[in-house]
Amino acid sequence: MTLKEDALNLHRILRGKIEISSRISSDNIFETEGEYGKGTLSSIYTPGVAFVSEEISKDRNLAYEYTSKWNTIAIVCDGTRVLGLGNIGPEGALPVMEGKSVLFKTLANVNAFPLCISLRGKEEIISFVKSIEPSFGAINIEDIESPKVLEIVEILQREMSIPVFHDDRHGTAVITMAALLNALRLLNKRIEETNVVIAGAGSAGYGIFKILNKARFKDIIVLDKRGAIYEGRDTNNNNPSPRVSNKAQYPVPKINPFKKEIALNSNKRKIKGDITTAIKEADVFIGTSGIGNLLDANMIKTMNKNPIIFALSNPAPEILPLEAVRAGAAIVGTGRSDFPNQINNAVVFPAIFRALLDLRIKNLDEDILIAVSKSIADLIDIKHLSKTYIIPKINDPRILPVVTKSVKDYIVNRKLINP
Amino acid sequence: MTLKEDALNLHRILRGKIEISSRISSDNIFETEGEYGKGTLSSIYTPGVAFVSEEISKDRNLAYEYTSKWNTIAIVCDGTRVLGLGNIGPEGALPVMEGKSVLFKTLANVNAFPLCISLRGKEEIISFVKSIEPSFGAINIEDIESPKVLEIVEILQREMSIPVFHDDRHGTAVITMAALLNALRLLNKRIEETNVVIAGAGSAGYGIFKILNKARFKDIIVLDKRGAIYEGRDTNNNNPSPRVSNKAQYPVPKINPFKKEIALNSNKRKIKGDITTAIKEADVFIGTSGIGNLLDANMIKTMNKNPIIFALSNPAPEILPLEAVRAGAAIVGTGRSDFPNQINNAVVFPAIFRALLDLRIKNLDEDILIAVSKSIADLIDIKHLSKTYIIPKINDPRILPVVTKSVKDYIVNRKLINP
Repeated sequence: MTLKEDALNLHRILRGKIEISSRISSDNIFETEGEYGKGTLSSIYTPGVAFVSEEISKDRNLAYEYTSKWNTIAIVCDGTRVLGLGNIGPEGALPVMEGKSVLFKTLANVNAFPLCISLRGKEEIISFVKSIEPSFGAINIEDIESPKVLEIVEILQREMSIPVFHDDRHGTAVITMAALLNALRLLNKRIEETNVVIAGAGSAGYGIFKILNKARFKDIIVLDKRGAIYEGRDTNNNNPSPRVSNKAQYPVPKINPFKKEIALNSNKRKIKGDITTAIKEADVFIGTSGIGNLLDANMIKTMNKNPIIFALSNPAPEILPLEAVRAGAAIVGTGRSDFPNQINNAVVFPAIFRALLDLRIKNLDEDILIAVSKSIADLIDIKHLSKTYIIPKINDPRILPVVTKSVKDYIVNRKLINP
Repeated sequence: MTLKEDALNLHRILRGKIEISSRISSDNIFETEGEYGKGTLSSIYTPGVAFVSEEISKDRNLAYEYTSKWNTIAIVCDGTRVLGLGNIGPEGALPVMEGKSVLFKTLANVNAFPLCISLRGKEEIISFVKSIEPSFGAINIEDIESPKVLEIVEILQREMSIPVFHDDRHGTAVITMAALLNALRLLNKRIEETNVVIAGAGSAGYGIFKILNKARFKDIIVLDKRGAIYEGRDTNNNNPSPRVSNKAQYPVPKINPFKKEIALNSNKRKIKGDITTAIKEADVFIGTSGIGNLLDANMIKTMNKNPIIFALSNPAPEILPLEAVRAGAAIVGTGRSDFPNQINNAVVFPAIFRALLDLRIKNLDEDILIAVSKSIADLIDIKHLSKTYIIPKINDPRILPVVTKSVKDYIVNRKLINP
């Protein structure tokens, strides 16, 4: 059987990978103590539950004590950028989000409910997510197209009182950084001597750029569909020669502020052109392009010695691992579970949410994300580290405690600095 | 311990009455067939899940086959009219909605997720519910204030392609009708000779009026806060003597179309005044007023012989059962689980959703609701029927099959009539 047949069969048999369970045994619910007596049902439902509702209405923070809110998150997706499949609609996104929910529960005991919605506008999605705050302890934004989603998350993080995590950006950044730390350790390369090329300037590309930039890599070049991003490129592009007839119909777009930030803080050498040019003399290639087979053997051969190739696009990576190894790659990682070195945010998002919920903290900046990356990289002892083992397995039971500890330590330390 | 202490303790210990579970054993998820082999994770998550997503994106109906959609509903509540507590906010509503979710799962194996939202506007709530359609097989609207909610549900039923059920209206109507059928049977009263007074013209009162009116009771008087509703009352009220200064600040409200419908189809005798007047010579009192102790013994004494008292408001009924019996009530029911004859929509909503989901049908009209009521009433054999047993217990295992059968039969029969 092919993987496609396997996957379709399993989904047809399961008809839903998750379910909502009652935490009260059905034997107990309907127990009563005589005809007018109190029973469990009287406590969990009317009339007894009214006392609980009244207490919460006086102090809505009590929802964390009396309901599932403390341990329940929403996975919100509009279906516009699902895996590498692109805009396949909210129904198409459902099986992926159910898969994430399974991982949340299995790896970190987080209740994650998939909300695949038929809204597309930025403002509409923002209102939607804000409106569900009462029911959830945190929000996970998944597979919404960029740059729309970057703006949405920034606004939500500012305006909501529960944490908003953007898995494609923050989760991917953490796991990529962790993998990269171990790859460099194995090859004896230093961060400040390492050039990185990132193909793709969407949520993942932007998130990886942010964390690597904070970690002070030698140089980073980020490419979008139009090639390497450099300071001035988009400014020029946004001042085209005036064409009145077009201008009315297609107003000049505002510069995407995220690409502007990339332009101002990367590509010190001002390299222009496509991946063939940009990859020359790079030490690391990170693919978040969504384009399968973007990379070929000849490009890898122009990289510095012992190149690191992280072809993270799903389901089709930028280059298949065997091909990359044959072309001289020293270490290869993909986002997939069926190759070694799975650099997939699934390794971290369950644990990060466990920490967010348990510590009741708000949002994570790049410094704390780096601390989490280091804690995950350090899980692999130097004597076990190898070219096919730079990242812990997704079900490594040590991930949960070290992520929580690193987040906690970071908060404690920061409080010490700014008491 | 008091019921309040019981309820608060139980909620504090549980810290959430529901959870989201994975349907795949955690032992199996991370099985692999060698380093590059396929494992369960490759099927339920990337890369295999992409095949499933692609199939659904080509035919979104396949979401019913490959995901939990077929068996998952949303319980949507804005917290404006929770139990008899009124506007206690969405967080306050959460424990009630979790209780409903427990009943959905325990009684009918329906996955019901509570979405308590911070939206208040009619249009906003309509957009919200429409936007979550991709993730759910049906919608249950709960505890939203009336008449806003009646309009919301009518629009959603028209514009969504999944069923929208309004528990406070439809569920309460079915269970009240079922209880009333058995009460009349026990007292040898006939529908066409029975006068009914309904206190409360909100969702429950309107729903009960609709079903009783369809069943052709002799006369029905519905009261709102201003007293008995009769034809012409609100028309007069909506043409007040013009007061220019007030008019600017408080524009004359449109006649609530639901009360208008009640006015045109009830109160044949055009009784005016409050409950004291309206209840005279009534055979049945049904309380959906949300006002505890609305009814007193003297009022019951003015009713016809062998009066039926259904004091359905929660948590405080219009009159306590013992008091009603002492005043001469022949049969008494409340909405509460700690008194006999629990006329609570919880007896029917799980089974009705099971039928809606299994039969993949849209919305239920009053004829089908009457058919369901009869099937539930008929569950009690005449030799078991008694003044304290007119309605099956909430956990009567026969409810699920008879409700599904009555809905199915009704659809089949209607198809025979209009093929």
